[in-house]
Amino acid sequence: MPGSKLTVFPIERLREFSHRVFLHYGVPDDQSALAADILARADLRGIDSHGIARLHAYATMLDSGRINPRPMIRTIRETPGTASIDGDNGLGLVVGPVANRIAMDKADTVGTGWVTVRGSNHYGIAGYYVLEALARDQIGWAMTNTTKIVAPLWGADRMLGTNPIAIAFPGHEEPPIVIDMASPAAAFGKLEMALRKGEAIPEGWAIDREGQPTCDPAAMVDGGAMLPLGSTRERGGHKGYCLGAMIDILSGVLSGANWGPFTPIFTTDFEEPPREVGVGLGHFFGAMRIDAFIDPDEFKRQIDDWIRTFRATRPAPGTEGPIIPGDPEREAEAIRAGKGIPLVAAVIDDLREIVAMTGVALD
Amino acid sequence: MPGSKLTVFPIERLREFSHRVFLHYGVPDDQSALAADILARADLRGIDSHGIARLHAYATMLDSGRINPRPMIRTIRETPGTASIDGDNGLGLVVGPVANRIAMDKADTVGTGWVTVRGSNHYGIAGYYVLEALARDQIGWAMTNTTKIVAPLWGADRMLGTNPIAIAFPGHEEPPIVIDMASPAAAFGKLEMALRKGEAIPEGWAIDREGQPTCDPAAMVDGGAMLPLGSTRERGGHKGYCLGAMIDILSGVLSGANWGPFTPIFTTDFEEPPREVGVGLGHFFGAMRIDAFIDPDEFKRQIDDWIRTFRATRPAPGTEGPIIPGDPEREAEAIRAGKGIPLVAAVIDDLREIVAMTGVALD
Repeated sequence: MPGSKLTVFPIERLREFSHRVFLHYGVPDDQSALAADILARADLRGIDSHGIARLHAYATMLDSGRINPRPMIRTIRETPGTASIDGDNGLGLVVGPVANRIAMDKADTVGTGWVTVRGSNHYGIAGYYVLEALARDQIGWAMTNTTKIVAPLWGADRMLGTNPIAIAFPGHEEPPIVIDMASPAAAFGKLEMALRKGEAIPEGWAIDREGQPTCDPAAMVDGGAMLPLGSTRERGGHKGYCLGAMIDILSGVLSGANWGPFTPIFTTDFEEPPREVGVGLGHFFGAMRIDAFIDPDEFKRQIDDWIRTFRATRPAPGTEGPIIPGDPEREAEAIRAGKGIPLVAAVIDDLREIVAMTGVALD
Repeated sequence: MPGSKLTVFPIERLREFSHRVFLHYGVPDDQSALAADILARADLRGIDSHGIARLHAYATMLDSGRINPRPMIRTIRETPGTASIDGDNGLGLVVGPVANRIAMDKADTVGTGWVTVRGSNHYGIAGYYVLEALARDQIGWAMTNTTKIVAPLWGADRMLGTNPIAIAFPGHEEPPIVIDMASPAAAFGKLEMALRKGEAIPEGWAIDREGQPTCDPAAMVDGGAMLPLGSTRERGGHKGYCLGAMIDILSGVLSGANWGPFTPIFTTDFEEPPREVGVGLGHFFGAMRIDAFIDPDEFKRQIDDWIRTFRATRPAPGTEGPIIPGDPEREAEAIRAGKGIPLVAAVIDDLREIVAMTGVALD
């Protein structure tokens, strides 16, 4: 970014820092390590918005007592193939992995497992959970609802979160296909970057506080909203709205969590929701044993063929051709694991503030 | 449509006609009735492209022996929560309901059921299947891959079908939320309509045979491709591509069917795929018992609240505010059940051709 200085940190130093910060707030050691690992995974994979950059928000929420550092996570309902979990207002980075493991364990028993979660908080990158399933020869699904920032098509208000969905499929010789995507047209992080640089944003990303399309990032931040994938009716914005709604209902309503505009705030900077309709934030996890459907070797060979076939697509002019979902994150990880994580000054300022709050050393 | 005459047919007459046409080709009576019912459901719900308008394609495929009228549908693999089905090259309208029922039956037993299908053909509207699940207090999922027509982002060739996904959630006093959407930016049917009317199509729908963006519908038809939801990288076209890929892999690869550019042709007008990588077309069904996760009454009351909350969203300027997924189809059904189905001349010509092929009377 022009005019912004990047400082590179080894991933181990960031992981260690996060671990100690969670410990400081009373999160048990193994859970602190796990939460730190999920943040580190985001930084390694190049998803900067969901890594160490979010530690400040988690720390502030723990500091103000809004997140429970030692939750009693419990199962509310259960069948052989399903469970509903209450996260007791724990860190999503702690509750999410527990629920995901239950889904995978159920898949071991009856072929698939599906778990809803209420009473949780933001759980990091959705991709983390589906990578865990890959390690068990399962196809993992992960969804979550999040703090409202997206308008439904034809609406002028923030009603849905960026609600991501992730799913992954293993290859044999090829690396896995890893889909991990939010449901709006563009990431809020990209809009924030345009704001810092004083640049306009493309059409189709956002509306202003009156609900009018805008290319001014400040107009979105000042009471406007992001637009769903597809942006307008003509270009399929109703489909992006449907996708966001589906993820909201599976994560928020089916679990007994808050949904839509009532999802809890993620940092203390946001406005409190007008009412509570459930318990905390919600997630939705699925796990499917590959051998419950097909011979896993045959499946992986077909995935290799799928990947090679799609890579060999004739490129559109001015491009190098289609990429395979998961490629950019894997390439980032290959570089960052060795060279470290570049952090912008604003993030480092946040980390210094955490140092001041907790006494945990960064250097 | 300007210059095109509409003729209205009572739904019963269309249903009866389809039923007799399937019978004529040797499809058993109960299966013919079911297949006709799925087509009628599409016409009632206003999804004109998937109703009686498709009977000509099914008839041609049956007539040329490309679809098996009396398939031996069998289970290839099974666990308590999953199954893989081979449709023996039957009508998708016959194979799909069998597989969907297996998913729902498994949900009755272990909470959820997930079924992949290979060796099938086009199965009508995805929405049909999830409405069946609603009747059993289950949340139904339906996906299918389809004949290639969509380019992956940055690709210049047709590599994916319009690959729809459907899911439905029941309300208590409110009608259900029914999501049933294809994964490209726009429906091919809309492009066809522009072609007939000699009009340009909006930016973001299609590319020409060189992979360049085009607003000329003829340039898409002549070796071009539709674009995924999001259309361009800037506006999230990689996400639409991911969605189409996910549906293709779950329906096509996990089932052992053909996938991507190798999906079988839907009508004899299309070019044959270059090679076979599996068996027929693939589907993916899921069913989740609501009470496996949450009290169904509580869930339905929350869905009522969700619907009312989203309906009450402040409208964007120039709109009447957000609609709830399923509203347009339900409104169409309320009108068409009484007033009949308006058909354009081109569809009636197709029906006359079926009359000539089969001797089944339309009038």
